[in-house]
Amino acid sequence: MRALEKPSWIAADWGTSNLRVWAMGATGDYVDHAESNDGMASLAPGDFEPALLRLIEHWLTDQPIEVIACGMVGARQGWVEAPYRAVPCTAKTSDLIVAPTSDKRIKVHIAPGLMQSDPADVMRGEETQIAGFIAQNPDFDGIACLPGTHTKWAHISAGEIVSFRTFMSGELFALLGGQSVLKHSIASTGWDDDAFDDALSTTLSKPESLAAKLFAIRATQLLHDQSPETARARLSGLLIGAELAAAKPYWLGQNIALIGAPHLTQTYATALRLQGITPQVADVTQMTLAGLIALKDQL
Amino acid sequence: MRALEKPSWIAADWGTSNLRVWAMGATGDYVDHAESNDGMASLAPGDFEPALLRLIEHWLTDQPIEVIACGMVGARQGWVEAPYRAVPCTAKTSDLIVAPTSDKRIKVHIAPGLMQSDPADVMRGEETQIAGFIAQNPDFDGIACLPGTHTKWAHISAGEIVSFRTFMSGELFALLGGQSVLKHSIASTGWDDDAFDDALSTTLSKPESLAAKLFAIRATQLLHDQSPETARARLSGLLIGAELAAAKPYWLGQNIALIGAPHLTQTYATALRLQGITPQVADVTQMTLAGLIALKDQL
Repeated sequence: MRALEKPSWIAADWGTSNLRVWAMGATGDYVDHAESNDGMASLAPGDFEPALLRLIEHWLTDQPIEVIACGMVGARQGWVEAPYRAVPCTAKTSDLIVAPTSDKRIKVHIAPGLMQSDPADVMRGEETQIAGFIAQNPDFDGIACLPGTHTKWAHISAGEIVSFRTFMSGELFALLGGQSVLKHSIASTGWDDDAFDDALSTTLSKPESLAAKLFAIRATQLLHDQSPETARARLSGLLIGAELAAAKPYWLGQNIALIGAPHLTQTYATALRLQGITPQVADVTQMTLAGLIALKDQL
Repeated sequence: MRALEKPSWIAADWGTSNLRVWAMGATGDYVDHAESNDGMASLAPGDFEPALLRLIEHWLTDQPIEVIACGMVGARQGWVEAPYRAVPCTAKTSDLIVAPTSDKRIKVHIAPGLMQSDPADVMRGEETQIAGFIAQNPDFDGIACLPGTHTKWAHISAGEIVSFRTFMSGELFALLGGQSVLKHSIASTGWDDDAFDDALSTTLSKPESLAAKLFAIRATQLLHDQSPETARARLSGLLIGAELAAAKPYWLGQNIALIGAPHLTQTYATALRLQGITPQVADVTQMTLAGLIALKDQL
């Protein structure tokens, strides 16, 4: 690490399981980075300030510094609740909530999440990634898909987030592959392109088949020696196929931007290309930082 | 408990998590019953005989006695593998496998499970419940639905099991309600009939909506204060609706017999009645015993 330039502000992505912070330079680049496992789920209200200070202490000076944070830190059970903004709304916002702190060297602003009344839906964190994507692609009109534990599909038009839906495919993949009867048949890594493509097209064209095809992963291994890597790709394909069937009003005939971790955007890009769509792909960490910079600029 | 009549044979239902045994009298009734948590999943091969003896020791005499067992005890990772029989096949069978024992007072016969090559599927335990049901309803032609962790739908005709499919709805309900993000919004007991009916008809008519409706359970609680009991009924309705959509070729226009625990058969009976079907209902323990008696009669 190079000799530390003192940051002009601090960006924080504070999710359910992790806290990541960046010491931001004057030019929009970051000069240092740190992270810990102090996610929202493991902290009581009084634990947030110490958890943050542990990571940023050596960046602080006598001058107060602003911290801009997004994610589950703003949930009701987080540091302080940052009430949801209702869609449709602009991606940019200045409605940040100041968290209570005792250390005078920091002032912490927490980004609000988004809500949709009907169909009921919520997000916290992804709205900042979308804001970052829109900051870098101001003329984008189409759909942002943010694959993850809870994948979000969001309709973006004229700088606004119009509507969105959440799918639990990532969490279902983890639960079924790691904790259900299928765990005996599924590898924790490895892949099979043909099995993924076949499973994807099965549930995309016949979404009702998902319920029957899940246990078939177990039976096919028992009876026909299906490999655990093939089984893993099949489970992923079945779940993403069912998700694409449900999200069809979002992606059919649309511009798509995928924002996520590389292994996830690659899987979703494959799935979309099989439907004749070539999505734009953006890195989730870069979009998070771009979004936090956009929030900083609004303060 | 009345003074113990020494049993003429012993019936055993030995599943993944439990072992249940019955001391059977000469007339077809049982004279005593015992159970333990020594399910197949917690036992190494050498543990099965001691686990059985712990429950039945006080029933034994100098005279060797036959034990008829069904369930996961016959799986590859069980006491001894009882190879699957392939459907279509008769419900009755004499193809039981004798388990290796060192105690000369017992002779243990293990029932084979059933397999279906395409679509790949397997069952162990339910085939004996079906055999019991057919023994008591020899002219039944239709569908047996056995709700549970892994619900089975089986086509029965002329005393044969023709085909079957397995659905993981029960395991999905337990994983989603107990271990996913939905656990924060779902009660462990309680019910809401209207929510169940509404959710059931949603995924039955639009099975692709399951993927989007799951997270909506969480969002509806956060935004609209949905009660945890309503959420629980909704999750059950969504999963069973998706199952009914996939199992439609099985139940549409058919005689249905539900074989299961009372709280499960009641839920499935409600779901089927909403489709205009009045199922016959049979108690799973009675059917298991009737099936083990039918197997004993074949020896």
